[in-house]
Amino acid sequence: MWFTLAYRIKCTVSYDGTNYNGWQKQVNQPTIQGQIEASIQKLHNGLYIKTHGASRTDSGVHANNQVFHFDTELDLAPYRWKIAINNYLSDDIYIKKVEIVGDEFHARYDVKKKEYKYYVNLNEYNPLLRDRMHFERRNLDVELMKKEVKEIIGRHNFKSFTGGTIYDNYVREIFDASITINNGILEFTFIGSGFLRYMVRTIVGTLIEIGYGKKNNIKEILMSKNRNCAGKSESSVGLYLDKIWY
Amino acid sequence: MWFTLAYRIKCTVSYDGTNYNGWQKQVNQPTIQGQIEASIQKLHNGLYIKTHGASRTDSGVHANNQVFHFDTELDLAPYRWKIAINNYLSDDIYIKKVEIVGDEFHARYDVKKKEYKYYVNLNEYNPLLRDRMHFERRNLDVELMKKEVKEIIGRHNFKSFTGGTIYDNYVREIFDASITINNGILEFTFIGSGFLRYMVRTIVGTLIEIGYGKKNNIKEILMSKNRNCAGKSESSVGLYLDKIWY
Repeated sequence: MWFTLAYRIKCTVSYDGTNYNGWQKQVNQPTIQGQIEASIQKLHNGLYIKTHGASRTDSGVHANNQVFHFDTELDLAPYRWKIAINNYLSDDIYIKKVEIVGDEFHARYDVKKKEYKYYVNLNEYNPLLRDRMHFERRNLDVELMKKEVKEIIGRHNFKSFTGGTIYDNYVREIFDASITINNGILEFTFIGSGFLRYMVRTIVGTLIEIGYGKKNNIKEILMSKNRNCAGKSESSVGLYLDKIWY
Repeated sequence: MWFTLAYRIKCTVSYDGTNYNGWQKQVNQPTIQGQIEASIQKLHNGLYIKTHGASRTDSGVHANNQVFHFDTELDLAPYRWKIAINNYLSDDIYIKKVEIVGDEFHARYDVKKKEYKYYVNLNEYNPLLRDRMHFERRNLDVELMKKEVKEIIGRHNFKSFTGGTIYDNYVREIFDASITINNGILEFTFIGSGFLRYMVRTIVGTLIEIGYGKKNNIKEILMSKNRNCAGKSESSVGLYLDKIWY
């Protein structure tokens, strides 16, 4: 009889999603999770170790603070894990923080709330911002958008604002939603219990359409529970998984 | 007998230098000028038209407002030129402004002064800033750097701060040089009559070395007229050609 000491490792990671087909590992596609698992595999002499991410960010979406965990028998101090995993990652993915946590912690199931940011450049097109913000050339009624975004706060069925995935339950709780504008850059903030696929991008796309006068009522779109009533899902380049609370 | 009406076109252009081997056209290398001339050539049914840039930015260097001119027999309004040239450019180069100017104007010879910016990230490494700012992990004495940067203001022989090109005259006049810090991002500003090759990057590299205690006197380095006395030429990723005055 024997037992092996194992450790659960929690990592916080930032990445530029531009060159990846999203977080989730896929065969023959570059993904964030695929890159990270390849790095961790090298540190374990070729042994595959599964990682569990908090959020499956889509293709092109960025993260300031995504979280994942994995289990290992390797006994390393957190700062050594951080150096070691980063060592095999390319410069567009960066492990910011490593913590050794108890085996009751789960990066996905224990999420209390998440924050997403979305940026829109209302100034002239800028090639230096092209993979960091959505560029919008139309004039927007930002005051109207600021008012309408408040309608998504609360517990709602968000079926109108998702696509591509079937859920058992479309109800999510949004704790805060706001828009600020600074030097012609719109910053959207969404804090919620969880988000459906394309939900933030579809809310942003709908608010932009409201801003240029095409659609006009978030409340009605929510009540319709019909994806066709909402606006288009806006580009992934402006979306950032910003923060996760446990 | 006949004469042909010709127009001189002045363009202001912004670009992300990451994927280019600098401004100046080279055979079999992607360059900003090469891309722009290919676009203008298409607009002239295959006729090659030479462009004259204000500044030969190096590989990886960005521009907020580079200027170039060319001559054409095509009679188009400025806003049409802007749409037409941008139409054949990829999304990392963008013509911001087109003006029809007199044939006495020259984008390179008529420059009165130029402004360069250089950005250094003193916070933790951020993959989303990796091609936009130099990342510096050492602690810097920013107050000392702010004091030392003032030593380059004035007319000086900058031979200590250039390399790779032989000049007849190494004297340039710097009208202003300053450093500000905001949320852990250092912003260097240099305004001068002209700049030698690698000059801004070598001044920044030397100031960073001053900041962590390696070198300590810009004035002495200037007087030495010896490249070996200055610090290293800092990475191109943080450098922006920001503004040109005529």
